[in-house]
Amino acid sequence: MKNYLSPTIMNIDPYVPGEQPKDGVYIKLNTNENPYPPSPKVIEAIKKAASSLRLYPDPDSEVLKSAVANFYSIDKEMVYAGNSSDEILAMSFMAFFMKEKPILFPDITYSFYEVYAKLFGIGFKLIPLNDDYTVPVENFFIPNDGIVIANPNAPTGIALSTDSIKKILEANKKSVVLVDEAYIDFGGQSMVKYINEYPNLIITQTLSKSRSLAGLRVGVAIGGGHLIEGINRVKNSFNSYPLDRLAAAGAAEAFKDVEYFNNTTQKIINTRERVKKEFIHMGFSVTDSKSNFLFINHPEVSAKKMFDELRKKKILVRFFDKERIDNHLRITIGTDNEMDTLLDTIKNILNVI
Amino acid sequence: MKNYLSPTIMNIDPYVPGEQPKDGVYIKLNTNENPYPPSPKVIEAIKKAASSLRLYPDPDSEVLKSAVANFYSIDKEMVYAGNSSDEILAMSFMAFFMKEKPILFPDITYSFYEVYAKLFGIGFKLIPLNDDYTVPVENFFIPNDGIVIANPNAPTGIALSTDSIKKILEANKKSVVLVDEAYIDFGGQSMVKYINEYPNLIITQTLSKSRSLAGLRVGVAIGGGHLIEGINRVKNSFNSYPLDRLAAAGAAEAFKDVEYFNNTTQKIINTRERVKKEFIHMGFSVTDSKSNFLFINHPEVSAKKMFDELRKKKILVRFFDKERIDNHLRITIGTDNEMDTLLDTIKNILNVI
Repeated sequence: MKNYLSPTIMNIDPYVPGEQPKDGVYIKLNTNENPYPPSPKVIEAIKKAASSLRLYPDPDSEVLKSAVANFYSIDKEMVYAGNSSDEILAMSFMAFFMKEKPILFPDITYSFYEVYAKLFGIGFKLIPLNDDYTVPVENFFIPNDGIVIANPNAPTGIALSTDSIKKILEANKKSVVLVDEAYIDFGGQSMVKYINEYPNLIITQTLSKSRSLAGLRVGVAIGGGHLIEGINRVKNSFNSYPLDRLAAAGAAEAFKDVEYFNNTTQKIINTRERVKKEFIHMGFSVTDSKSNFLFINHPEVSAKKMFDELRKKKILVRFFDKERIDNHLRITIGTDNEMDTLLDTIKNILNVI
Repeated sequence: MKNYLSPTIMNIDPYVPGEQPKDGVYIKLNTNENPYPPSPKVIEAIKKAASSLRLYPDPDSEVLKSAVANFYSIDKEMVYAGNSSDEILAMSFMAFFMKEKPILFPDITYSFYEVYAKLFGIGFKLIPLNDDYTVPVENFFIPNDGIVIANPNAPTGIALSTDSIKKILEANKKSVVLVDEAYIDFGGQSMVKYINEYPNLIITQTLSKSRSLAGLRVGVAIGGGHLIEGINRVKNSFNSYPLDRLAAAGAAEAFKDVEYFNNTTQKIINTRERVKKEFIHMGFSVTDSKSNFLFINHPEVSAKKMFDELRKKKILVRFFDKERIDNHLRITIGTDNEMDTLLDTIKNILNVI
């Protein structure tokens, strides 16, 4: 039967997201969701928008794009809004990277980049991270038709400075450099303020993490109008209205309620720094995460073992069965209560083993 | 600046959807929206789902797929649910048609098919419709790696019988035949009951028309599990969670409230048949539409002229500046009041010209 499928699709290894258990009994620290709900204003806006669902949405999500533009004090023409930053990444790969030379991204990063490259027949070269998981900036100074940098990187949480990213942009003026800022609001330095300086810079962000809207599927891209036009051309050749009325209305409010955003983001940063100290105290090594997760390993207990034991205790974290990181766990920052339960459970596991 | 874009994207002509005016003063009969709101149960379900937006949705939209499966008395594994039938069409082109031989579709049909083929580098051959805009079934009996049939066809509204589609399926057992049933609920014969008989049959449907949810962006595909797996492989290589929590919850209710669906659909059919008679009485020729629109032309007044005059009177209809149909208008069936206003306005235009 399989011969009905296109060869590319038959042979691809799709991305596998973290488990979404349906029974609700787990402490869920495995997919970097925000432990706090979205702003109440988001919910209000959604309920209001539900009254006009018989009509198509605005294909350009102008209200949402204006909210993003206001938040960053940039021009609305420098914003694209779509159905998750994953979709925007996929469209950006099509818009900018279907060329001759390979694109470059780190060997350890968001594993969807490799899937997109294979889906669209784009050649790629993996640039190995340094032993301490930092990005070797100079190794991106080789011929390429595109570069993807997650900043902060996943699953390490380590951020690059804007100066380092500028070096990559300056050494690659003929390539589009895509900076995936999914986790930027938890302590990294955003490149948004430099979009007018670098015509080869495109930035993607998601509302799933710092804006507590994983369930709404909204992402944005920010960059020069000539690059936004490229993504729009793909969008208009794929799905004229990627964002439904509810998602567009809710997402706009999430960008408008700056106080709520600042409060919840700061709470997560505070919890992260407290928990990080506790992990170090227990003998873990912990990267310098600027994201809403910690990337940890223990000198004596294997990550897989720890993952399995935590799962038995109804705590889900993320384990990647992948070379160079298969003795690490990525743990989302939850509420202070959730993290206290996690820390106690890990202490018990370490005592028993 | 343009050299940042991939050549394919730079050269493609994206699809152009019907105008979405923002000022709200138009009678909008140009994008085949439903004049009636969705079932109140849909709105209730959406408001309820808005309480859990911080968490990712179910990546497989199981609740929605079950509702569709129940509606059609089929297995849930034969259903895919996604962010509009446009997105599902795009993914189906990738899943089934990226092969050696060209795919076939009519020269006059939903113009997005040609855009998808070009976007994914898929060769295609246009099969000219007969002079009366019916589909020449036997002309699809030539070598191909895929066939797309909109049933009823757009913008003509003319439907094929299931027997005709079976002939195409039987003559093309090695190709996937995609039947786009966007308008099937307004009087056509769905192929859903034959999915077990034809392993090469995949059907797409949308909730934008008969289920009054253009603003929610939900579509479904129905076919053998081996074909649904193909679409899932693309989905999981593109965006793990194409449907947000609100869209999935609302769409499920739309399939559950069968009585509401039957009532509104029948109202539209009744209005269509009444208006069709009036058009014929006024000297228009009108195709035998089984959709929620009429496809009309007048022997004396050009379609472009009529389109412009209607627009001046704040009535939007659809004009396609395309060979063979550039003297026709596609007019969505609105409420009885809206259609009476349209008919009066057209009468006046005909008197003046």
